[in-house]
Amino acid sequence: MLKHQEIAKAIATYIDKNSLSQGDKLPCLSDLVESYQVSKNTMIQSLKNLENSGLIYQVQGSGIFVRKPHRANYLPLSDTIEGFSTNFREEKFSSRLLDFDTIAATQEVATHLNVSLGDKVYYVRRLHFMDNAPFCIEESYFNTSAVTYLNSEIAEKSIFSYLREHLNLSIGFSDKYLHARILPDSLGELLELPTGSPALLAEEIYYLTNGVAFDYSRTYYHYLNAQFLMQATHK
Amino acid sequence: MLKHQEIAKAIATYIDKNSLSQGDKLPCLSDLVESYQVSKNTMIQSLKNLENSGLIYQVQGSGIFVRKPHRANYLPLSDTIEGFSTNFREEKFSSRLLDFDTIAATQEVATHLNVSLGDKVYYVRRLHFMDNAPFCIEESYFNTSAVTYLNSEIAEKSIFSYLREHLNLSIGFSDKYLHARILPDSLGELLELPTGSPALLAEEIYYLTNGVAFDYSRTYYHYLNAQFLMQATHK
Repeated sequence: MLKHQEIAKAIATYIDKNSLSQGDKLPCLSDLVESYQVSKNTMIQSLKNLENSGLIYQVQGSGIFVRKPHRANYLPLSDTIEGFSTNFREEKFSSRLLDFDTIAATQEVATHLNVSLGDKVYYVRRLHFMDNAPFCIEESYFNTSAVTYLNSEIAEKSIFSYLREHLNLSIGFSDKYLHARILPDSLGELLELPTGSPALLAEEIYYLTNGVAFDYSRTYYHYLNAQFLMQATHK
Repeated sequence: MLKHQEIAKAIATYIDKNSLSQGDKLPCLSDLVESYQVSKNTMIQSLKNLENSGLIYQVQGSGIFVRKPHRANYLPLSDTIEGFSTNFREEKFSSRLLDFDTIAATQEVATHLNVSLGDKVYYVRRLHFMDNAPFCIEESYFNTSAVTYLNSEIAEKSIFSYLREHLNLSIGFSDKYLHARILPDSLGELLELPTGSPALLAEEIYYLTNGVAFDYSRTYYHYLNAQFLMQATHK
């Protein structure tokens, strides 16, 4: 972790531990420089980081203030960019493996993973829980030319951690397509929702840093248990 | 516009005009430096911008490649951060003003705008179209201590442009809360959707750079005409 990231993290922890709320004023730049014992440039960079993450806002000539959205129980949309288990705190999050298989790619899967129709892909279906409440159902297809090995034991835990740590894959970027949909009847029982409930459907394609698509996923979110927050800074 | 932003824009235009697709290779750094006649540092910054906007990806030791999501007709979620008319091309976008009024803030509105219950707020309800198809219904409440004047003529066009250009307001940041919901019956006819259709509901609070909340909006999106794309770069 770079110095300015380290300092940004320390300030974020300070805001959290002291339960500061939106509009609370932080010490001025020179005081921060002194308390954290870093250069002015590093501190400016740390503050820029915190601003981009939606944790503070800076008012020219007036000071540095805490930014904190009104509502709890909304997940930052940015936390979902790598699926769940990698970003959410383990104590809140759990999963149940519903299906694990090796299947032949359908046309849709082949298109998204840039493989041939009928090519072998890993298929994983999981039900995720947050605080023991059903959160989402995630269906994933893995390109076997990138994800060379996978089994049900691994799929019960964080697949992305396994890809990074054991297969040494370098995850580069992703495209996420978001839609509102009616929940398919077949998923109602698992999510404990009545027929005709709305759902947020996210389709995601994940690429390695070399541009190879390795994961195509379709996730249906429980419309009451999964709500998202997106913080933006305007120019 | 800074030099590196200008160059990033020129490269984006180049990608667009030449209909390049995902994986197409761009010239190497030194060739780009030469063709655009900028310093190496400026070009590195421009490429970083393009990478963050999801337009290219860089593979160490291999080159710079075009990134282009598979699906058209998805709107970048980042384009919606200031409502519609400011970001979308005018020829594709139109609006119809449904209601304009000055009303007393309800408890919900008062909480979000940080005003007192019963304080005067501007109320605007608009139906937005994309390519002449219903796109969303947006209901907005404006804090009159920040938005000191508004009328129905202004509300027929881009309110944000008016706030910037005429009231000289400086828009700082926003919180967007996203949910899947059943479309309220009262909105079905306007969006030309049957009862019980799903909808994406976005609640947004916009703040000035000084931290004052000036706009609280609730927007219901047509679930088939409004679909969103979020591109992420992983670390």
